Amino acid sequence: MGVEKYIVPILRSYSAVLFNSEAYGGALLLFLSFLNPNVGFGGLVSLLSAYLFARLLGFKREFLRIDYYIYNPLLVGLSLGYIFKINTISFLFFLTGGILSFLTTYVLSNLFYYYFRLPILSLPFVIVSSTLYLASQHFSNLFVESLYPHFYLPNIDITPFINGFFKSLGAVFFLPNTFCGLVIFLLILRISPILAFLSVIGYSTGILTTALFKGSLYQAISDTSAFNYILTSMAVGGVFLVPSLRSYKFALLSSFISVPIVESSKVFWETYSIPVFALPFNVISLLVLYVFIFTGYSLVTRVYRGTPERTLDYYLTRLKRFPFTGREIALPFSGEWTVWQSFDGEWTHKGAWRHAVDFVITDSEGKTFKGTGSSLSDYYCFGKPVLSPIDGTVVDVVSSLPDNKPGEVDKENNWGNYVLLYDKRGFYVLVCHLKQNSVNVKRGDSVTKGSLLGLCGNSGYSPQPHIHIHVQLLPHLGAPTVPFSFTSFISSK
Amino acid sequence: MGVEKYIVPILRSYSAVLFNSEAYGGALLLFLSFLNPNVGFGGLVSLLSAYLFARLLGFKREFLRIDYYIYNPLLVGLSLGYIFKINTISFLFFLTGGILSFLTTYVLSNLFYYYFRLPILSLPFVIVSSTLYLASQHFSNLFVESLYPHFYLPNIDITPFINGFFKSLGAVFFLPNTFCGLVIFLLILRISPILAFLSVIGYSTGILTTALFKGSLYQAISDTSAFNYILTSMAVGGVFLVPSLRSYKFALLSSFISVPIVESSKVFWETYSIPVFALPFNVISLLVLYVFIFTGYSLVTRVYRGTPERTLDYYLTRLKRFPFTGREIALPFSGEWTVWQSFDGEWTHKGAWRHAVDFVITDSEGKTFKGTGSSLSDYYCFGKPVLSPIDGTVVDVVSSLPDNKPGEVDKENNWGNYVLLYDKRGFYVLVCHLKQNSVNVKRGDSVTKGSLLGLCGNSGYSPQPHIHIHVQLLPHLGAPTVPFSFTSFISSK
Amino acid sequence: MGVEKYIVPILRSYSAVLFNSEAYGGALLLFLSFLNPNVGFGGLVSLLSAYLFARLLGFKREFLRIDYYIYNPLLVGLSLGYIFKINTISFLFFLTGGILSFLTTYVLSNLFYYYFRLPILSLPFVIVSSTLYLASQHFSNLFVESLYPHFYLPNIDITPFINGFFKSLGAVFFLPNTFCGLVIFLLILRISPILAFLSVIGYSTGILTTALFKGSLYQAISDTSAFNYILTSMAVGGVFLVPSLRSYKFALLSSFISVPIVESSKVFWETYSIPVFALPFNVISLLVLYVFIFTGYSLVTRVYRGTPERTLDYYLTRLKRFPFTGREIALPFSGEWTVWQSFDGEWTHKGAWRHAVDFVITDSEGKTFKGTGSSLSDYYCFGKPVLSPIDGTVVDVVSSLPDNKPGEVDKENNWGNYVLLYDKRGFYVLVCHLKQNSVNVKRGDSVTKGSLLGLCGNSGYSPQPHIHIHVQLLPHLGAPTVPFSFTSFISSK
Repeated sequence: MGVEKYIVPILRSYSAVLFNSEAYGGALLLFLSFLNPNVGFGGLVSLLSAYLFARLLGFKREFLRIDYYIYNPLLVGLSLGYIFKINTISFLFFLTGGILSFLTTYVLSNLFYYYFRLPILSLPFVIVSSTLYLASQHFSNLFVESLYPHFYLPNIDITPFINGFFKSLGAVFFLPNTFCGLVIFLLILRISPILAFLSVIGYSTGILTTALFKGSLYQAISDTSAFNYILTSMAVGGVFLVPSLRSYKFALLSSFISVPIVESSKVFWETYSIPVFALPFNVISLLVLYVFIFTGYSLVTRVYRGTPERTLDYYLTRLKRFPFTGREIALPFSGEWTVWQSFDGEWTHKGAWRHAVDFVITDSEGKTFKGTGSSLSDYYCFGKPVLSPIDGTVVDVVSSLPDNKPGEVDKENNWGNYVLLYDKRGFYVLVCHLKQNSVNVKRGDSVTKGSLLGLCGNSGYSPQPHIHIHVQLLPHLGAPTVPFSFTSFISSK
Repeated sequence: MGVEKYIVPILRSYSAVLFNSEAYGGALLLFLSFLNPNVGFGGLVSLLSAYLFARLLGFKREFLRIDYYIYNPLLVGLSLGYIFKINTISFLFFLTGGILSFLTTYVLSNLFYYYFRLPILSLPFVIVSSTLYLASQHFSNLFVESLYPHFYLPNIDITPFINGFFKSLGAVFFLPNTFCGLVIFLLILRISPILAFLSVIGYSTGILTTALFKGSLYQAISDTSAFNYILTSMAVGGVFLVPSLRSYKFALLSSFISVPIVESSKVFWETYSIPVFALPFNVISLLVLYVFIFTGYSLVTRVYRGTPERTLDYYLTRLKRFPFTGREIALPFSGEWTVWQSFDGEWTHKGAWRHAVDFVITDSEGKTFKGTGSSLSDYYCFGKPVLSPIDGTVVDVVSSLPDNKPGEVDKENNWGNYVLLYDKRGFYVLVCHLKQNSVNVKRGDSVTKGSLLGLCGNSGYSPQPHIHIHVQLLPHLGAPTVPFSFTSFISSK
Repeated sequence: MGVEKYIVPILRSYSAVLFNSEAYGGALLLFLSFLNPNVGFGGLVSLLSAYLFARLLGFKREFLRIDYYIYNPLLVGLSLGYIFKINTISFLFFLTGGILSFLTTYVLSNLFYYYFRLPILSLPFVIVSSTLYLASQHFSNLFVESLYPHFYLPNIDITPFINGFFKSLGAVFFLPNTFCGLVIFLLILRISPILAFLSVIGYSTGILTTALFKGSLYQAISDTSAFNYILTSMAVGGVFLVPSLRSYKFALLSSFISVPIVESSKVFWETYSIPVFALPFNVISLLVLYVFIFTGYSLVTRVYRGTPERTLDYYLTRLKRFPFTGREIALPFSGEWTVWQSFDGEWTHKGAWRHAVDFVITDSEGKTFKGTGSSLSDYYCFGKPVLSPIDGTVVDVVSSLPDNKPGEVDKENNWGNYVLLYDKRGFYVLVCHLKQNSVNVKRGDSVTKGSLLGLCGNSGYSPQPHIHIHVQLLPHLGAPTVPFSFTSFISSK
């Protein structure tokens, strides 16, 4: 019972390297790693050292709760055990690996979370293992005492291409061997056929591109750092994005552009005889993920359910209920209004500000005003109540700008009078061009759906009275807009 | 018509590399790049690949609207075309260049904007081109199939120094040739004599310093990466700063300190046979620009008008209307007050907090109090209304600190009771040492110029009642102050 | 008198390199540096150049006020003077060093302060000196004109180990000589025996580990970059942490893990014949300090009093008055309540959220409710006033969530209705599970200790009415909690 609380997180972390969290899969991977006892023990020693150091600092349960605290020192230990057998001297070296992993993981995970909103994947492992491999070149005694001959593991020989694939898959856990790779592949296949499929896609794309550039398929498949293509493809096509034809397309493209990253890392490090580890996977995955997240790409996985299959299930169920984006808001008025400009509108809803909708009130002839339209009061929507489209908090308000005469615009204050709201689901809604001094909420107020925000006006860059509404992910005025949808409405046409 | 919307942004981006946005200049540069068709086509292929990838992500108009999305893949393509001729294999390589450029540009521009408030210049190009040049060393097939002999372009031979200058200028677009350089120089001269002048200044400074350190002028001028001195000088002296004698001095100093950056980059990369590209220009320009911006250096260009000449025009016109800084605020009181301490005051307005003004009320003898001055109510300004000097928003308020007895100060709460206001022009105004419990605005309030903020008091580090006012660019208490000026006042002396 | 205002800051900056600020120690170090006049003058020339450049930008007093503006160019100059004697050519080179140091220091200190909350130590020196050493390899003329033979300084020969220690200590100021090292050691000993002790601990740990890995004590002690172990040990054990057995343990561990950093830096740079300077010290110190600060480690020095001894004094005095953490808050209620769960509670106070306390009201039998407990009103604490535990500002409020029936929890809104307060001492207090619509403060309000926040309820992840309170360092909901304590209470058991 006491041991279990340590064992289960470790097993899950082994699995996390392959993007899932099944303990039984982790048990299999742990078992495999002990086929080369130096690798198996190495991983555990560095992990233990990281854990003990973390406890010194008062960490205890968080360490076991968060998978990257575990798998980063683990991978560092595996990488050291791949070269050095365990004895007194190398033991100390494995200890430094664990402590450095913990420090690096803690710092990077904080910075990545706060400033990039990105996971750290196995970046700490790459940094620490590269550093220790570099350092070891000066440690003659370590080499003399701990270097061991290339470890023999039974290989299964199929075809060169498939051998290469399995060896690369095994190399993820420093077991570059067809047998281990085959077992790992079967494990992936059982857990998620989609991930298995993506691993093949990624490997093939990476290897064929490399072969083309190098002019030698043989050279391409004999390089086990090709596991970077496998991991990149799985991460992009099955984890970061909801599985779909488009996600597979991005998986393929990501493997493709990983090729020069793998080779440039190799050229850079080969002067020092350092392998590239998982650096290319980390670089491309993080670049691509950042772009997916910050452009608000529609397929981005918001909740990963352990495997791509379960994520897809979740997403499809959810899709049925919420047609578009997961950013559903109510209409900002009651009664019947008309969409004047919608997404990618012809006039102003361009570029980063393209996801926006303008509303007016029209009469039976489609006109927005009565009489001549030369006075603001001619416009049907002028002065009509504007309601909160969400339950949220008022983040910012401007209320003092004058309403333009019809046909004129205020080029300096693009948004005119506005209310910026924050929705706990993680986005901001801007409602603008409100009437001067009509706003009746203030910064800090909580509002509920349907409560009065102000009156429709003609302030800002607005030639005629209308309501402009859009959704953005950042709190400042002028932030890029993202897609959203309205929860319920009756279209009269 | 349809093509135009693609062509014009491309032409402008070519021009943007030389710090302006004239389409006709871009057309000339595009034409020049086709003197070596591999360079010309290379640029367009990588650009096309970046654009198509961006569209996959839902980008479209922003891509064409923002110049660095265009010129970064363009330069990457030029750099690849400079080595490899276009065929099936290299085509794929050019494609990776475009996609990697887009990803790098997107991520870096976001991070630079949010965290450094800096442009990215051509940093993505430098990163991607260095990576691809590195990778290509493993791509034997690419070399076999696509390497082409050094491309011959007609050279004009003037003097070695001038040849070197023109070749370096041509090298900006991977056309290291005196003829191309001459054409580019004439183009710059036509668009902006100031930039042309700065290019000469920068080149001369860089080359002479290098020659001195190397002991050989010949070696110095035979290195085309000297274009880094040219670009640095133009950026610092004509773009980041309003052109003036002082801006030219900084241009010269920037070229001077670029010399060790150029050479250290060369030493670092020559092990790998990688050129330095525009790395030194990016490093020095961004370092210097950051320092200019965050120290609030007075000559920093706030609005660049396409050329240094137009910027200067704009600035001079504006200068006439607004004497000092572009941060004009009203006086924070009505009636007649006296400046007690001004910028760089003898007492406390020191260091980062030197741009501040203190006001008191004096009598005809210049004294600030009646009677003995031992009681706060003896002081003429104590309890007098303090007014908002701007239209803005209340960001922070403290109101509960006690007023010191005359002659005593509160060393713990330097600012005492204060109101911190935000002005939409992009700065913060702090008014402090207010009377206890006298503040009658609260966080989030909008205030207009002249509205009551509170009463003059003696809280905080204040030995006698007075109003302290300063302007800062960051929202936290104790942020460095920057210069500002008062819009209108009558000096009674 | 005029000179003094320049001299004293310089002397203090020399001392700052050894973690104190005594001018007389600095004078001794300055004197020592002139034993090799090239080193001594080199430092002053680069410093002068940095200062003059800063003045061009309008800097003046801040430069002299902030020690890292001074010691970074100083160290750069010392490092250059260690290789090049002073003449016209090298003079220009020393000038570039000063300007580059100022720019790098300004930018890095800003970024480190805002984004990492870390000091920059001597990182700018490491970056600039590495760059200039790299660049100098292309500057044949500089070598021809300025290189000078290895400078002879009188050595005192004791034992190899002690010689190594003194040489390393001298190497901090580019005086790798036993005599200089001895003088420096005596200086440290006089100023702070704790720092002297830590320097020995650090050196021994680093050297013995290195000797073990290399299989040669001789090799280990002949490397003067071992000063990195000395500085790391002093910084971690005596400056970042309050001196204690635990701080010494961390000093030892930090020196231990510095070993692979020193050697990997050496392997990396030796291709370029560049020394590692103080890179390993900076890397390990900053990693460790970041982790100390952000995990809220209890021994972190909040106010460094010039020497570890004075810091310890201060801390011990303070400890007597404030028993636990420096984050003392009042109880959030009046009357008699019972602690239901405390730090590291069995139920939900786990992981990053472990520093939290739950309160309920119990009757004489220890029960929290009367009757059956099936209705919320059965619970003694339900609806009781919740008071502000601090003087602070309301940062965030939620008030609209329903109260769960007893035994049920709201898994989506973990914290239920809550008030998040900011305390000027630099932390946030969250009080939560309040009753629906009972909160009577709003965002932006100032509150004083004991003022009413709302009523005890059962909203959020709460199976029975109680008050949850914790302290966190970051403003967002769900931020990690840190230890805190209650100022005054009577324990009835």
